[in-house]
Amino acid sequence: MFQGYDDKSDPTLGATRIAALRAVLKQAGLDGFIVPRADEHQGEYVPASAARLAWLSGFTGSAGTAIILADRAAIFIDGRYALQVRDEVDTSVFEPVSVIETPLSKWLEEHAPENARIGFDAWLMTRAQVRRIRKALARKNAELVAVENNPLDAAWSDRPAPPLGPVSEQPVSLAGRDVPDKLAELAGLLADKDVDAAVLTDPASIAWTFNIRGKDVPHTPRALAFAVLRREGRPQLFIHGRKLSNAIGNRLGKIADLEAPDRFAGALSALGEAKARVLYDPSGSAEAVAAAIEAAGGTIVNGADPVLLPKARKNAAELAGARRAQLRDGAAMLRFLCWLDRMAPAGKLTEIDAAKKLERVRRQVARADGWPLQEVSFDTISSTGPNAAINHYRVSEGTNRTIAPGDLFLVDSGGQYRDGTTDITRTILIGEPARDRLDLYRDRYTRVLKGHIAIARMRFPKGTSGARIDALARADLWSAGLDFDHGTGHGVGAFLSVHEGPQRIAKTGHAPLEPGMIVSNEPGFYVARDFGIRIENLIVVTEAATVPGGDRDMLSFETITLAPIENRLIAPRLLSATEIAWFDLYHQRVFASLSGWPGLTGRERAFLAASCRPIAG
Amino acid sequence: MFQGYDDKSDPTLGATRIAALRAVLKQAGLDGFIVPRADEHQGEYVPASAARLAWLSGFTGSAGTAIILADRAAIFIDGRYALQVRDEVDTSVFEPVSVIETPLSKWLEEHAPENARIGFDAWLMTRAQVRRIRKALARKNAELVAVENNPLDAAWSDRPAPPLGPVSEQPVSLAGRDVPDKLAELAGLLADKDVDAAVLTDPASIAWTFNIRGKDVPHTPRALAFAVLRREGRPQLFIHGRKLSNAIGNRLGKIADLEAPDRFAGALSALGEAKARVLYDPSGSAEAVAAAIEAAGGTIVNGADPVLLPKARKNAAELAGARRAQLRDGAAMLRFLCWLDRMAPAGKLTEIDAAKKLERVRRQVARADGWPLQEVSFDTISSTGPNAAINHYRVSEGTNRTIAPGDLFLVDSGGQYRDGTTDITRTILIGEPARDRLDLYRDRYTRVLKGHIAIARMRFPKGTSGARIDALARADLWSAGLDFDHGTGHGVGAFLSVHEGPQRIAKTGHAPLEPGMIVSNEPGFYVARDFGIRIENLIVVTEAATVPGGDRDMLSFETITLAPIENRLIAPRLLSATEIAWFDLYHQRVFASLSGWPGLTGRERAFLAASCRPIAG
Repeated sequence: MFQGYDDKSDPTLGATRIAALRAVLKQAGLDGFIVPRADEHQGEYVPASAARLAWLSGFTGSAGTAIILADRAAIFIDGRYALQVRDEVDTSVFEPVSVIETPLSKWLEEHAPENARIGFDAWLMTRAQVRRIRKALARKNAELVAVENNPLDAAWSDRPAPPLGPVSEQPVSLAGRDVPDKLAELAGLLADKDVDAAVLTDPASIAWTFNIRGKDVPHTPRALAFAVLRREGRPQLFIHGRKLSNAIGNRLGKIADLEAPDRFAGALSALGEAKARVLYDPSGSAEAVAAAIEAAGGTIVNGADPVLLPKARKNAAELAGARRAQLRDGAAMLRFLCWLDRMAPAGKLTEIDAAKKLERVRRQVARADGWPLQEVSFDTISSTGPNAAINHYRVSEGTNRTIAPGDLFLVDSGGQYRDGTTDITRTILIGEPARDRLDLYRDRYTRVLKGHIAIARMRFPKGTSGARIDALARADLWSAGLDFDHGTGHGVGAFLSVHEGPQRIAKTGHAPLEPGMIVSNEPGFYVARDFGIRIENLIVVTEAATVPGGDRDMLSFETITLAPIENRLIAPRLLSATEIAWFDLYHQRVFASLSGWPGLTGRERAFLAASCRPIAG
Repeated sequence: MFQGYDDKSDPTLGATRIAALRAVLKQAGLDGFIVPRADEHQGEYVPASAARLAWLSGFTGSAGTAIILADRAAIFIDGRYALQVRDEVDTSVFEPVSVIETPLSKWLEEHAPENARIGFDAWLMTRAQVRRIRKALARKNAELVAVENNPLDAAWSDRPAPPLGPVSEQPVSLAGRDVPDKLAELAGLLADKDVDAAVLTDPASIAWTFNIRGKDVPHTPRALAFAVLRREGRPQLFIHGRKLSNAIGNRLGKIADLEAPDRFAGALSALGEAKARVLYDPSGSAEAVAAAIEAAGGTIVNGADPVLLPKARKNAAELAGARRAQLRDGAAMLRFLCWLDRMAPAGKLTEIDAAKKLERVRRQVARADGWPLQEVSFDTISSTGPNAAINHYRVSEGTNRTIAPGDLFLVDSGGQYRDGTTDITRTILIGEPARDRLDLYRDRYTRVLKGHIAIARMRFPKGTSGARIDALARADLWSAGLDFDHGTGHGVGAFLSVHEGPQRIAKTGHAPLEPGMIVSNEPGFYVARDFGIRIENLIVVTEAATVPGGDRDMLSFETITLAPIENRLIAPRLLSATEIAWFDLYHQRVFASLSGWPGLTGRERAFLAASCRPIAG
């Protein structure tokens, strides 16, 4: 199984480990040290060998930073992890701080000793992060010092070895373009920016560019690697040779100079010595990269990773793969939901039972379809009652709840298939709640659904960003004095990251939505310590069909996730005729797509029919 | 009358005047010169004495810039003025350039001669503008040179004298706060920013701070002046003494050091010599201000004009005034619309007739109410047929059209009263168009109305910016492949600027909407060379009443404009029950508010009743 359910973290180790780290810091003449969650690639998932923050503090969330001073330490987390940090971390050792209210820079401005020397590992922080902190420390005449060797690594005696996951090829039939074609486009982008080279440190960008996938981190098929692209001449790919079969090595060797990762720093210096102008992403790449180039005499040109946009605009082959993967994933969801419908009302299932079943069903359906499940896209959020109100809930033996009749069950999950990455959330009514609870659930669920439908069916002019349409998913909750504290949608990769930029439907989503981009559509509603609702489909930005009389080029969304949406939680009086029509048409598509899926049982077919019956009166 | 209808501009003068300017430039050793529309105060309206761009080129729009090189010249305008510039300017002398596609900086990068010396008047451009142009010129090894004396002024032989409009006091009963209270708040803001002083160059900021109004420019009751606020100590107010009566002078002299405007530059140098840290708005104030302070040794701290936010958040007295002004203005609009309804179907009225009538009615109603009309808020947009598709149309004898039966008539206007500034747009069906035209008008009008209602009735969480809700005014047009090319709403002042920041409902409106802010709600729809529709009310941001079950602090809008909205252009099948309810409730309020207005005729009362009857079936 890809997902485990043990309680990963032991808060009691924090005190010992911080003591060990402080001893190393003292020897190194440092008054403090910053421990971010990131590795050298700044990704969402890090290998066990780079899980420094988890080792030190116990905190296993996907975003966080610790600061260790001589006499105090703090851990900075966002709202998603406000509860989790208290379970995983010894808060008498690490004071939890909301990074939204008090960023690390602001905290340091207040708490760093005058004239302090605060250490950091320049491979683990971006230039943008470093700049903010340097500026804050300057107010205390304090200094941010890049360390040569990470002092935490010196204290980390049982550190696992770095991963050596085998690299596989993403064939052109799925990637849609060959590598020379992609390299030519990127060389053109470098020419447009008037730079000689670009440094890639994001393994997802490297995976897309070289049509490779890896197995170095959980959930995302990345091979940890670095690359240097050139406006003219061959790219360099810095990757451990033991990850490459002879066949893959030969193929890649024809396109790029293959080098060991420990040659990367030298290559950066060589760029500098050649006085190259190098494109560098100050918010996405490690400070060490830019520093090495500058130290050797090169010029840094700040700009976004040039692969981001080409990768985000999925081509026809990638979209065909995504639709195929969604159909398969929908069949698995159907099997799971039918099982849940049969089993849950007895009140014996737990969240872990459900998550395990879902992974088994995904494996089974995928294998039978000839496209084996490669990974789950992330740890399935299998959550009921109050657990469903925790946005990034991961069920463990310690938190596992029985799915009780009368509760809502929220399941957010996805599969990694070679032809696509899926991400779907459904909220299911279990048994029969009391009338007033049911009314409450229905009201909130229907408002969330209205937001979902508003996004799904909207048209918008070319050039519109996700930030501009995010409110449409919220307006109906807002009118009831309600909201949800996460974005409406994130970008999704093509057998790559389930969270991919720059496209987003959120306050911070300033990139224009472009045809081919895949984003999630997942409004929700949560009452802390009580219940949670979310409805998520993936949608693709498409050129909108022309409307008679329309005078603008418009875009629209195609919903590609295909699985029944709970219809017993709807308050029809809250839906307009248009919304009901969308809902029924969606289910008509789901039924037409899934009813012929090979191997469905009679029970599953009947469940599908019942789940997809029209709600129009 | 406040509004004139002559064709202001004579394009044939451009060639002569540019020749005169080029002669002066040559003497001064300059290869080019930038002529912006702005004066020293960077306001929307400039006095005739500062209308340099209009003198030189003929262009009278509210935004534009000309560049004069030795062998070519160009004028940069936005989409609003794409048509107007061709009427007003000799385009064989000034090439019109869309500033959106090609900003001046980009144009100079292409067309400025290598090593050129391009002159500019540092009192007429902001630091932000200067920086962009300097950067572009650097690529041609060219230089941007601040001139001591504006060479255009040397060529401008018949330049009018600067205005000396009398200053009046805005009493505390209307302003809601006295000047010491405002100065104390501002001193606190300066302390928060850790600066010693702030320079105000926007006469609207000065008007608010000192509770004064003026008559120096059309339409907006500004007194052209500068001010220096201090964290500690008395402010300085630089204003021509002949604008002040003895009474006003005495009152102001108790609060501030009154000085002549020509002492302002010296005061900036004095700030510098005192090594002051001075708050300066790089997007709102002239480069010359910052340069003078820095040259004398002071430190510039960039930041928004500190008055903007306090001024935008209207207090209870200002809001009471606004509501009173709206009621009065609504009565005038009612009288006007009733007249139009009676007169227009005969097909004899012109756009100028309508605009004149509206100003007369506003004067008449206001005088009878004891609150005389001080100005029109802007030149009334009285437009029919294709003229209504021109966003900033100003009717003149040359463009005047007969309001023809079967056409739509769009009237956008407002009044300046001592208790408030109004701005209202109505689109009226004249006579009986052919069936297919009426269907088209109704479809588009109803979509615009739906956008208007979506904004009017929405609730949103505290902290939400206008940029995030702008799409709600457009979603229904978007769904039909349509859009409009202006923001949904602009801020409005309290007997001050009809366009006031920072609040906006637009793509660029990043300031959070706060209680007390007044904004317009004016979605529209336009078909070039055919027809135009816009529906505009002013709305006030208010704390939303609590909804049972709501768990957030929400804001909502109170619509304060009170005048019938054309109901013969509605396609009811496009409206939801909620939208119909909003529309009928609004008209119920309009009827209740206006039906008792003193002096209404029987005909007007009957017209009001017909205009306000419910559309619900």
